[in-house]
Amino acid sequence: MTEGPQRTKKAAGKKPTRRGDAPARLWLYGRHAVAAALANPARRVRRVAATKNAADWLLERSPPNQHPNRIEDLKPDAIDKLLPAGAVHQGLAAEVFDLPRARLKDVCAPAEAGRPVVVLDQITDPQNIGAIFRSAAAFGARAIIVQERRTPPLAGALAKAAAGAIETVPCVKAVNIARSLEALADLGYETLGLAGDADTEIGAVDGARPAALVLGAEGAGLRPLVAQTCSRRVRIPIAPAMESLNVSTAAAIALYALSRDR
Amino acid sequence: MTEGPQRTKKAAGKKPTRRGDAPARLWLYGRHAVAAALANPARRVRRVAATKNAADWLLERSPPNQHPNRIEDLKPDAIDKLLPAGAVHQGLAAEVFDLPRARLKDVCAPAEAGRPVVVLDQITDPQNIGAIFRSAAAFGARAIIVQERRTPPLAGALAKAAAGAIETVPCVKAVNIARSLEALADLGYETLGLAGDADTEIGAVDGARPAALVLGAEGAGLRPLVAQTCSRRVRIPIAPAMESLNVSTAAAIALYALSRDR
Repeated sequence: MTEGPQRTKKAAGKKPTRRGDAPARLWLYGRHAVAAALANPARRVRRVAATKNAADWLLERSPPNQHPNRIEDLKPDAIDKLLPAGAVHQGLAAEVFDLPRARLKDVCAPAEAGRPVVVLDQITDPQNIGAIFRSAAAFGARAIIVQERRTPPLAGALAKAAAGAIETVPCVKAVNIARSLEALADLGYETLGLAGDADTEIGAVDGARPAALVLGAEGAGLRPLVAQTCSRRVRIPIAPAMESLNVSTAAAIALYALSRDR
Repeated sequence: MTEGPQRTKKAAGKKPTRRGDAPARLWLYGRHAVAAALANPARRVRRVAATKNAADWLLERSPPNQHPNRIEDLKPDAIDKLLPAGAVHQGLAAEVFDLPRARLKDVCAPAEAGRPVVVLDQITDPQNIGAIFRSAAAFGARAIIVQERRTPPLAGALAKAAAGAIETVPCVKAVNIARSLEALADLGYETLGLAGDADTEIGAVDGARPAALVLGAEGAGLRPLVAQTCSRRVRIPIAPAMESLNVSTAAAIALYALSRDR
């Protein structure tokens, strides 16, 4: 880490990390999100604020080497003031630095069957992205690839929905999703675009080949170039009366289906 | 319908419907939630408020017999004022009466393989309940059974997350969940309690038998009496590093897994 306090101070309030900038400062809240951040050796933590109860929970739950140097003892409404309005913080919040950038080839190679990569094309809802992280961790996904420009910071409500999974599932912020799919194909991944009108059911995919699961936004779906770049389009069979599944639900079902085929 | 305007006026602001009371008045918001309510012949609608854009969307999307008698043309911030703070209404809101009560035997008999019943034990989060409705509709579930006393009204954020599914999946409000499980067993359902520490994987369940899927709250899980009343406890196989899945994610995966076995 080469950034001293002067350098990092300047980054406060800036947009998320870009190459060469100091890492952004972000707030995490919620018990699982904060506990997982403290357990992550790659995560630099600036501040931890907790109610008495939440501090007890944290210290009881975590091994001593993960205890923060200092916990600010605050009342719930004082923690409210540190966070966006309506944040359900469960008495625990931490100001942290964004994680170091992950590079696709570092985290996705060599390709492995049963360790899918998840690629998000234009998914912007923090709750959905967080929920996808949580399911990705639950089903042993290798990494999540997002488009840098459209994706909200991995913090706040997103991190809370992820229940700690943003600390364990590497996130690659890509400039161009179609190009990332080509890179994954070069590494030996079958790139599976999830689309409601695809002919192949996800349950029919042969799990012996490493897979990258590509998800588009609800409604809009995959962008045409992204859909074309996928080696295969697959669908989750649902009742015709229902237009679609929630995107994080679809991701979880697809990850389960792929894990079943191993 | 025997309730005149005098009677229903008295019910305004009351807690959700109880036997013998007039149906409660509730607000629905979000495009899919409102459009589905208007398409549901069993749903009585009091008021529809929409922005110009949302009204156009609604009228274009719905067949003429589902058009409301009158749409109040309001600006987004005027709709805000009708709804709880922070409601993401997409320019469309409707005040409706609660749906008529559904009775377990009316909506769950005769038991049918491939048409599971979903039973929620102490799940109180509106987003999760709504998301479970949406997945239940997508996988052809027969009905959802909830505990009357602890369940939030089927409206607002819950209805929005359900994306219209509260209009199509009957909801039974039970006094006692364990007794409902006995009634389902009597009807020929295998009652499957989802539990992280169960021995049987959900994928190993024989889909030829009608199933009721029983879900407990995240963290707490199924209450002991409810778990004991289930004919079988099943789990979704997840990585040991992740404590649990989100409950609506778990419901969706289990419904998918049961639908696969048919």
